[in-house]
Amino acid sequence: MTTRPDTPLLDTVDTPADLRKLDKSQLRQLADELRTEVIDAVGSTGGHLGSGLGVVELTTAIHYVFDTPTDKLVWDVGHQCYPHKILTGRRDRIRTLRQGGGLSGFTKRAESEYDPFGAAHSSTSISAALGFAMANKMQGRPGRGIAVIGDGAMSAGMAYEAMNNAEQAGNRLIVILNDNDMSIAPPVGGLSAYLARMVSSSEYLGLRSMASKIAKKLGRRVWGGLEKAEEYTRGMVTGGTLFEELGFYYVGPIDGHNLDHLIPVLENVRDSEQGPVLIHVVTKKGKGYAPAENSADKYHGVAKFDVVTGEQKKSSGGPPAYQNVFGETLAKLADKDPRICAITAAMPSGTGVDKFAKAHPDKSFDVGIAEQHAVTFAAGLAAEGMRPFCAIYSTFLQRAYDQVVHDVAIQNLPVRFAIDRAGLVGADGCTHAGSFDITYLATLPNMVVMAAADEAELVHMTYTAVEHDSGPIAFRYPRGNGVGVELPEVPQKLEIGKGRIVREGSKVAILSLGARLAEALKAADQLEAKGLSTTVADLRFAKPLDTALIEKLMRTHEVVVTVEEGAIGGLGAHVLTFASDSGLTDGGLKVRTMRLPDTFQDHDDPAKQYDEAGLNAPHIVDTVLSALRHNSAGVEEARA
Amino acid sequence: MTTRPDTPLLDTVDTPADLRKLDKSQLRQLADELRTEVIDAVGSTGGHLGSGLGVVELTTAIHYVFDTPTDKLVWDVGHQCYPHKILTGRRDRIRTLRQGGGLSGFTKRAESEYDPFGAAHSSTSISAALGFAMANKMQGRPGRGIAVIGDGAMSAGMAYEAMNNAEQAGNRLIVILNDNDMSIAPPVGGLSAYLARMVSSSEYLGLRSMASKIAKKLGRRVWGGLEKAEEYTRGMVTGGTLFEELGFYYVGPIDGHNLDHLIPVLENVRDSEQGPVLIHVVTKKGKGYAPAENSADKYHGVAKFDVVTGEQKKSSGGPPAYQNVFGETLAKLADKDPRICAITAAMPSGTGVDKFAKAHPDKSFDVGIAEQHAVTFAAGLAAEGMRPFCAIYSTFLQRAYDQVVHDVAIQNLPVRFAIDRAGLVGADGCTHAGSFDITYLATLPNMVVMAAADEAELVHMTYTAVEHDSGPIAFRYPRGNGVGVELPEVPQKLEIGKGRIVREGSKVAILSLGARLAEALKAADQLEAKGLSTTVADLRFAKPLDTALIEKLMRTHEVVVTVEEGAIGGLGAHVLTFASDSGLTDGGLKVRTMRLPDTFQDHDDPAKQYDEAGLNAPHIVDTVLSALRHNSAGVEEARA
Repeated sequence: MTTRPDTPLLDTVDTPADLRKLDKSQLRQLADELRTEVIDAVGSTGGHLGSGLGVVELTTAIHYVFDTPTDKLVWDVGHQCYPHKILTGRRDRIRTLRQGGGLSGFTKRAESEYDPFGAAHSSTSISAALGFAMANKMQGRPGRGIAVIGDGAMSAGMAYEAMNNAEQAGNRLIVILNDNDMSIAPPVGGLSAYLARMVSSSEYLGLRSMASKIAKKLGRRVWGGLEKAEEYTRGMVTGGTLFEELGFYYVGPIDGHNLDHLIPVLENVRDSEQGPVLIHVVTKKGKGYAPAENSADKYHGVAKFDVVTGEQKKSSGGPPAYQNVFGETLAKLADKDPRICAITAAMPSGTGVDKFAKAHPDKSFDVGIAEQHAVTFAAGLAAEGMRPFCAIYSTFLQRAYDQVVHDVAIQNLPVRFAIDRAGLVGADGCTHAGSFDITYLATLPNMVVMAAADEAELVHMTYTAVEHDSGPIAFRYPRGNGVGVELPEVPQKLEIGKGRIVREGSKVAILSLGARLAEALKAADQLEAKGLSTTVADLRFAKPLDTALIEKLMRTHEVVVTVEEGAIGGLGAHVLTFASDSGLTDGGLKVRTMRLPDTFQDHDDPAKQYDEAGLNAPHIVDTVLSALRHNSAGVEEARA
Repeated sequence: MTTRPDTPLLDTVDTPADLRKLDKSQLRQLADELRTEVIDAVGSTGGHLGSGLGVVELTTAIHYVFDTPTDKLVWDVGHQCYPHKILTGRRDRIRTLRQGGGLSGFTKRAESEYDPFGAAHSSTSISAALGFAMANKMQGRPGRGIAVIGDGAMSAGMAYEAMNNAEQAGNRLIVILNDNDMSIAPPVGGLSAYLARMVSSSEYLGLRSMASKIAKKLGRRVWGGLEKAEEYTRGMVTGGTLFEELGFYYVGPIDGHNLDHLIPVLENVRDSEQGPVLIHVVTKKGKGYAPAENSADKYHGVAKFDVVTGEQKKSSGGPPAYQNVFGETLAKLADKDPRICAITAAMPSGTGVDKFAKAHPDKSFDVGIAEQHAVTFAAGLAAEGMRPFCAIYSTFLQRAYDQVVHDVAIQNLPVRFAIDRAGLVGADGCTHAGSFDITYLATLPNMVVMAAADEAELVHMTYTAVEHDSGPIAFRYPRGNGVGVELPEVPQKLEIGKGRIVREGSKVAILSLGARLAEALKAADQLEAKGLSTTVADLRFAKPLDTALIEKLMRTHEVVVTVEEGAIGGLGAHVLTFASDSGLTDGGLKVRTMRLPDTFQDHDDPAKQYDEAGLNAPHIVDTVLSALRHNSAGVEEARA
């Protein structure tokens, strides 16, 4: 049995109401205990650690000063919310984080009234907080919107759009910029440089000058207990012009780990009649846990680990991760092709672009959290003769859908989309699932959509994309490790729109797209065992379809089942539309489509998620058997 | 016969190469003739006038100073490109603008090498120009990226993302901010106020101080011919901190109609070794044409008009536009429901939100060109008890797809999406077509998707959306005027997921979604005349489907045809998936899906576009007849 940390003060706090009963002088101890609890809990569950450790004091101070849940606290991205969960009635379940049936690793409305807005994608918090603020203003009731947003998230256009609209909320909107100079990857771009200049140029102001500046900024009431405050005024009010030009009252930078600084600033902002206010707080990701502070990525996302040593549980090794197969393949291909370049939106290691960047730093672009820019920038590169690869997770490519349509597909520009995290993704849950890309891409004219059945296929598809200069092309592949097939020495250029027969049979045909192929083959074994001769095809392409292959299989099999790791409107829809419109099904044919269900599935182990989705081998078998039991009137007959 | 304006100097200029042979002293006359030509051409075609008139001098100056097409000039949105088209070899076709087979009203790669990047949606230009700049840099060849972007377009997050990434391009990237203080609607937000302050605080600087400031900014080479330049230095270098904080060298504000100011500034920027540079140019929309200058919207988009009087050809009257039916209906409903509010992204009149805003100014939000913010802001409003309507064109909602998924659908928040410009849109062409929303929305769990068959249905659907508090709901309707049905006095709350039979028959069933209903009914008449008894259903909902109705019709009809104004993956796909998976089609049933083709259709008259798309009554008839000719083996038999 593990020993839980000793947390006598934290044990008295179940909700923010309990917290507010404490004396300010007790908050330091509370924060320390909270930090210990977070480290211990994440040690046992894995998850996002560094970002939560960075906001322990900020979390404590916000709930102490503001009237949550009436005031709506919106954590941007939400992965820094573990301390928040502990302080808002969920400590008893904190060691279920990211486990099936347990707490979400992000904020989630269904979990608590203290989570007014769910998040997991970046940069939504200011818009949402503004919505809360204005809704309460219109309804004449109390309730501020408080957004806590990282400096990385500030690089997304959406945050800027929201800031540009913030003025109307007045003092009901508070934006806390959590500047830890590092989101997942090192910070990128002009804004980041700007923030760094502000922080590095900041100085301790004298009491008098600070008070007068704050007074000018926030109106008459300033600084309760100002007399003793000189020591906590490090760097107040040193610039902030960018935010002020957009209509904010800027306060900062403030040491985000010093409660004696944080609390009075928050109190004054709370009591101000002026707004909106942007509070610039400087924190250290991984704060207070040496292994995290000393690690390059500050323990952004970790496996279970030993709290004392910081050592993470090794993964079992095994086949390489898809992202690395992609990144290494692309790097090798680029050795011989100077036109290849790669773009990531703040996910260099998650997408494997780091492998490419190491070999070809001049051809690699990390644009920050800016998927819209990433795609149109790639379109410009493609228009001028480069062979750009946009490596973006399926779920994040949603951020750039219009750019895919308007800048890439309409102009038929050869941008290559390497779509990672296709299908269900496990512990990150529905916000990160790659469920819709087949549907939203295959509906677009000019677009080619592939899905890799395994890591060898990914190698071929990467090369196929390199060579495809006549228009846009996308290839999707799952989160996690490959299935263990040998990687090809020489990548093969696939014929566009051609699938392959993986196993030949005569009665049942399974048309698979993507990494369910292994399950399809398992199902075929089980069907054969029942005397049902089964063909398995890997279609490779959702668009263009291999219509010749599909027609042949439909004309020669009794039951045809499509299988894909995507929602309705994708492969199954395209196959049915072709079959129906060409009259192939006029005379009767049992076709079934298997796909992700019409729900947002909660986080769990991926295999369990696919079980819940009904996309594992037994479900394929059941679908075939059920189809065979249907009579020609479409009514299922009793099991023979 | 109309008399063309007298343009002796312009007649000598076919391409920028001709332009560059002129003496600077001749440019004023050229610009004047160019302006006259634009006015005359748009008088005969209709189109975007005010924005083009505002950039006549800027267009002239850019092509005179820069080496287009080697330097890549990217016009943001592109609707201000008519003068550009005249100067780049397309004057002979300028009076075919926006006509079927004629020039596009936007920039278009297929039209000219001087259009390196097509546009029509806003705020893409800096990303694209950066792509051009970096592609040429990596390939070691000449070629700058020059983006011309309006102040309205600067409010979109995408522009900010691009600026945040600009520094790497150095002097290969030039952004010209065309500040006319007005996009289509009055400007919105903090950025706009910031620009106004910069312009209003600008002053004529003395020669010496201006020269030294520019010198500091752009390095050693400054101002050829500086001696005579004092008069053209109005307001150089007065602020620009926001852009400088993002890594730009800021130059401006500059009078964008004064060629004696523009040319030397552009020359100096061209010759500078520093960059990227942002040139802040102040122009007047509609400049030089009194009727445009005096009109509230500066003749943003006009019908054909009389050049002398400015009088626009009246439209024929007729039924009200869909957008106004929506706006007025919502305004009326809000009289009794204080929770209703409306959000537009810089399209108040295009979406009819202006009608709502007039009645309920405190409940109306124009967020600027910021669809991402609009949707998540609405999600926040919905989470806090309001009933928000996001009124966004189908094509622009693509800009906020991730927000629809992540912030609205996953959280099941009751945001109402009023989706205008669904289907084909005529003269604006494929960039504005609303082709994909059924597909990209109906694939999402929790989402309800409706389409209005006529303006009376739109009234019902608006009310249905008001009352739908259990999750998100979207309703789509076409561009243009209704079909002339009477508007209901009392809006009806439709049952979610229930269609209606509009006409009963027995052999053929047409399942229509949206405004093709009229064509479906026409087709039914023609089929009846051939002895084919035809049912027509208006499904109203793409999601959830009326599965009971569909099953009943499939069991009782020989041929079933779906008709929708959308691309593959929408209604037809959902109907087929239901029918196939439930075994309804196992015994043989002729189902056909009719939808938009798998191409991006060029601009033309909408009726002609639908003819090209194969979605008019004769095509429906042909589809039915062809299906009936298919034998059970799926082979079409010879016509009887």
